[in-house]
Amino acid sequence: MIIVMSSRDENDVRKVVSRVEEMGYMPHVIRGVERTVVAAVGDDREKHRLTALESLPCVEKVVPILEPYKLVSRSVRPDPSVIECGGVKIGAGHFAVVAGPCSVESKSQIQESARIVKDGGAHLLRGGAYKPRTSPYAFQGLEEEGLKLLRAAGDAAGIPVVTEVMAPDQVHLVEEYADMLQVGARNMQNFSLLREVGRARKPVFLKRGMAATIKELLMSAEYILSEGNPNVILCERGIRTFETATRNTLDIQAVPVLKRETHLPVVVDPSHSSGDWELVAPMAKAAVAAGADGIMIEVHPRPEEAFSDGPQSLTPEHFRQLMEELKPYLALAGKTTQGGA
Amino acid sequence: MIIVMSSRDENDVRKVVSRVEEMGYMPHVIRGVERTVVAAVGDDREKHRLTALESLPCVEKVVPILEPYKLVSRSVRPDPSVIECGGVKIGAGHFAVVAGPCSVESKSQIQESARIVKDGGAHLLRGGAYKPRTSPYAFQGLEEEGLKLLRAAGDAAGIPVVTEVMAPDQVHLVEEYADMLQVGARNMQNFSLLREVGRARKPVFLKRGMAATIKELLMSAEYILSEGNPNVILCERGIRTFETATRNTLDIQAVPVLKRETHLPVVVDPSHSSGDWELVAPMAKAAVAAGADGIMIEVHPRPEEAFSDGPQSLTPEHFRQLMEELKPYLALAGKTTQGGA
Amino acid sequence: MIIVMSSRDENDVRKVVSRVEEMGYMPHVIRGVERTVVAAVGDDREKHRLTALESLPCVEKVVPILEPYKLVSRSVRPDPSVIECGGVKIGAGHFAVVAGPCSVESKSQIQESARIVKDGGAHLLRGGAYKPRTSPYAFQGLEEEGLKLLRAAGDAAGIPVVTEVMAPDQVHLVEEYADMLQVGARNMQNFSLLREVGRARKPVFLKRGMAATIKELLMSAEYILSEGNPNVILCERGIRTFETATRNTLDIQAVPVLKRETHLPVVVDPSHSSGDWELVAPMAKAAVAAGADGIMIEVHPRPEEAFSDGPQSLTPEHFRQLMEELKPYLALAGKTTQGGA
Amino acid sequence: MIIVMSSRDENDVRKVVSRVEEMGYMPHVIRGVERTVVAAVGDDREKHRLTALESLPCVEKVVPILEPYKLVSRSVRPDPSVIECGGVKIGAGHFAVVAGPCSVESKSQIQESARIVKDGGAHLLRGGAYKPRTSPYAFQGLEEEGLKLLRAAGDAAGIPVVTEVMAPDQVHLVEEYADMLQVGARNMQNFSLLREVGRARKPVFLKRGMAATIKELLMSAEYILSEGNPNVILCERGIRTFETATRNTLDIQAVPVLKRETHLPVVVDPSHSSGDWELVAPMAKAAVAAGADGIMIEVHPRPEEAFSDGPQSLTPEHFRQLMEELKPYLALAGKTTQGGA
Repeated sequence: MIIVMSSRDENDVRKVVSRVEEMGYMPHVIRGVERTVVAAVGDDREKHRLTALESLPCVEKVVPILEPYKLVSRSVRPDPSVIECGGVKIGAGHFAVVAGPCSVESKSQIQESARIVKDGGAHLLRGGAYKPRTSPYAFQGLEEEGLKLLRAAGDAAGIPVVTEVMAPDQVHLVEEYADMLQVGARNMQNFSLLREVGRARKPVFLKRGMAATIKELLMSAEYILSEGNPNVILCERGIRTFETATRNTLDIQAVPVLKRETHLPVVVDPSHSSGDWELVAPMAKAAVAAGADGIMIEVHPRPEEAFSDGPQSLTPEHFRQLMEELKPYLALAGKTTQGGA
Repeated sequence: MIIVMSSRDENDVRKVVSRVEEMGYMPHVIRGVERTVVAAVGDDREKHRLTALESLPCVEKVVPILEPYKLVSRSVRPDPSVIECGGVKIGAGHFAVVAGPCSVESKSQIQESARIVKDGGAHLLRGGAYKPRTSPYAFQGLEEEGLKLLRAAGDAAGIPVVTEVMAPDQVHLVEEYADMLQVGARNMQNFSLLREVGRARKPVFLKRGMAATIKELLMSAEYILSEGNPNVILCERGIRTFETATRNTLDIQAVPVLKRETHLPVVVDPSHSSGDWELVAPMAKAAVAAGADGIMIEVHPRPEEAFSDGPQSLTPEHFRQLMEELKPYLALAGKTTQGGA
Repeated sequence: MIIVMSSRDENDVRKVVSRVEEMGYMPHVIRGVERTVVAAVGDDREKHRLTALESLPCVEKVVPILEPYKLVSRSVRPDPSVIECGGVKIGAGHFAVVAGPCSVESKSQIQESARIVKDGGAHLLRGGAYKPRTSPYAFQGLEEEGLKLLRAAGDAAGIPVVTEVMAPDQVHLVEEYADMLQVGARNMQNFSLLREVGRARKPVFLKRGMAATIKELLMSAEYILSEGNPNVILCERGIRTFETATRNTLDIQAVPVLKRETHLPVVVDPSHSSGDWELVAPMAKAAVAAGADGIMIEVHPRPEEAFSDGPQSLTPEHFRQLMEELKPYLALAGKTTQGGA
Repeated sequence: MIIVMSSRDENDVRKVVSRVEEMGYMPHVIRGVERTVVAAVGDDREKHRLTALESLPCVEKVVPILEPYKLVSRSVRPDPSVIECGGVKIGAGHFAVVAGPCSVESKSQIQESARIVKDGGAHLLRGGAYKPRTSPYAFQGLEEEGLKLLRAAGDAAGIPVVTEVMAPDQVHLVEEYADMLQVGARNMQNFSLLREVGRARKPVFLKRGMAATIKELLMSAEYILSEGNPNVILCERGIRTFETATRNTLDIQAVPVLKRETHLPVVVDPSHSSGDWELVAPMAKAAVAAGADGIMIEVHPRPEEAFSDGPQSLTPEHFRQLMEELKPYLALAGKTTQGGA
């Protein structure tokens, strides 16, 4: 931590120095031309307590030097992690396509979807049984019935399944049915839920919050790892900005930034970032080119009849076409897509 | 809903018209100079299903006309609501000051805080027992022990208490100790939690999410009301923008916008919006001038020793001074502050 | 500057240390538990050159300690500046109301506007002759004819006038007619224009850009002062965020932040921040309560016929009412409004 | 335009209907279950005047249906434009690489840079002679001397040159030396400058403003085209968001959105979007995959000595490597890079 003094009074400097020592850090005082700075050297486990010194009138600001995450960091684990999910590998050269409808709507809809995405070459089937919806009057999902339909559809088509969990007390139930637990963007800082999926046996698919920084996404993953679950996949799905031409702004730069900071795999969801099926194919290619370890794509047998997110869903035909077009991009990026087979 | 066609082909127009009719709306076709538009008239309960038509290539966009909220709306209840909490009234001319430390840290700290804020003229005591922290390594709160200390401190000082609830399965426990349940900014779209506090008997203090629009804040309140709890207080606490001089950007315009849209009381939290105690006093005055029904202020006996949010906490002396300075602003705004006495 | 090393190799540290010395700074090396840091002490005039060191693989980041502005800073001039404009004082307790239509539309419209705002108690008349419009097909202003009409209207009503200048080569012409030169939000970083108004004899009314940080606003003012013109008034007029309920988000916290950083007066424009006349009155009061030195308000004889910005313009009646309501708020804030009289 | 009434009073509806007729539009009244809507059909040239009706208390809002741009639109010109610049073609399958240092610093630096980028395979040389800098104390460019050095370096290496123009009265001078005129992000809504480059004979490279929407970028291009210059290249260079891990957020989705809306070529600048040379290569590939018609890359012989933007500049070696790696991506995207040869 670097503590920038607003005062040059030696008494104030001494006061800060002794506070720093009391908290167990070694202070170094640097007297500049216009400002005096106190550097606090030491173990950073409790360093956030140093920031309280900002409330002193003699302190202008406290500037952290180290990133606050550990377990997710490349400095702790330099090699990329490979996450296994129902026999599918993601990370370190293994690329995975997660595809399916926004919501599980009916037995026939999810069965049909499972066949479409499996035949198209997807590695995991997605489908929501518990739906976080802005409006209480919108379709909220089929809940446990939806979990059963999803599991059955995945089994019938021979593809593992991922679905969203919205509350800590749902984790055990969802774990029974799903191969991977999704934590949605609106729950990225639902810390009770993060702790609970951190104790689960299944991998976690963690979506970045709409206004979450890259650092906060990593801190949320840190919650999960710190509870004992090392299998976390990060997902960039667009952030909220002033631009209204698209539903969200896809922060494609987050992919290489995350790959540099963490060993965890990074997936891109161009369906939610754009909210517009016509943008999904170019963004999926861009994600591969940027170094992503996977993509999550919404596909629906008949998008114009979807209960939710119809405008951003690919038709079966468009999905098959995209999967074909992606192949040479994956080859260029040095990715394999054979899953755990 | 207004459906803007990208195609002028009569077959496409007929197709959309019959879809609109199938869903139970009355279509009106308007042929403009460059675009054909189909207006769908009818009950809006299921209108969000119309948006799926955007996935059709012949449709450019679907524009909603009506706001999606009902129970929170002034069009349903034109007069402002008054929420009662432990004998304190908020709304419709009743102004309330919620004050206290970020976290309950110890018995003596919360007892001292309770006396300070009560003596200064606050109407409710705040203090966190469950703390949503970005880092799993930061202080997470005293949990149930913290609830007990808060309750005891409030009782000793004669002031009702409000505290945050972070998960659906905590609601019943927190309800036993607190007079009002706070839903934090990071949980504003934790819909499982919203449903659960919607079934609670205590009023809910709902903070706006960092990237939530005013409309989404109202939709989250709608979740709570739709479950049967009419006692919701909305809190503007700053939104996330590109500006880094302050922790968040206080959206002061949200106050009159919300007062125009909803009958629910609106409170401003200048401590979290600024992250800087020096800005709290001018922002508290601005909140009153803008029409707020209350303020939430962080106060700590010794901010430089606080476990969390020290830099934004007022000292006891600064709090007392602010309360004095606010009085003429409250008089100008036509607010009374006698609580339920 | 604090240079955070990514490498702990002593050769790398020596390399950075000698670079720092070559540029004329005194290096201090601090070896922390996980990072080595090099503090560069010295005159900061050329310190931005140090940031190029970030391109070295052995450097993680370069963190500035000092603010980059000087002439505008309170550390250079602790007392607030008073700007005089056509006999009206702004700053240091002198509050000014700038009011008038968005555009000068005709002789009768601006004459009528001048009388309305003067009678209502405004101190300066605004009116655009050169209009920055998003669309080339929108009304672009009456140009020099508009300047003449504005001048004549101000003279007839006995009120000084302020108008926007959009290009360096317009500055001399506009200066002939106007008492104060406005630089609009879109031109806040039009550095050629800033230099030119910095050489003008008239005060400058500098609006914050839609995506400009507070620091950048101060740097733009620094451009003007560094060219020799000390008379700059800063204007917060809303920033661009994700919120769409209002045209912009009024960053009310910027008022006390700016008052703490700079001696220059700070004015708030609630008409442009909200884009909605109903929000103007509460935001004008909030601006006074937050410590602003003035407000800029759009007023039009008949807003529904305005060539531009009709929805945010007050009617004459609403303007008079607002001016009455502001009086006790100004008294509370310790402001006088007698202009230069 | 769709005018949504807040009032259901027939007198109010009649009043709005007659206003709409007076302005020359054909009104269509649709009476919904909760709202009455008036659709105004007609030539949209003056439609922005309709928005003033929002100031009427009986009107809730005015919703535009048509996009406000014309000349830049694909609806006016369905086929993509090809822009020629010094013998280099950009657009419609022709991909161009613009590369070079941020600033022209000296004769040897720009000569060396020209050779490096030409040898690496770039098609245009960039280099700033007039530098828009946030600080008046930062290096402001060599001005006319810089233009001469840039021209000479381009001629010596056999590569056309592009450089920024900052003010209307510089346009003619810059045109004498440069093959293409760059309008920087901070000047995207400097309408006086847009008009002037609209009258120039050289193509214009128009960068998106930091807080500009895609629609506003297109409107700024419309200014240039409406003055007679059809040769405009659009450049996405990152927008300002809350994320601080990168200098800006690259809005990669803007590429396919722009390609759908306009016939003008779209270039991506990953150097300015990221501010970090390590991110440039993956983002350049992503830009190609997303459908961009070109990239702009900062390259410096010795980034750690650059007068400006060192941290985001590629070394000669990294540039050559990137150009090699891009080739298969260009082939996949169906782009040729032979320039005008």
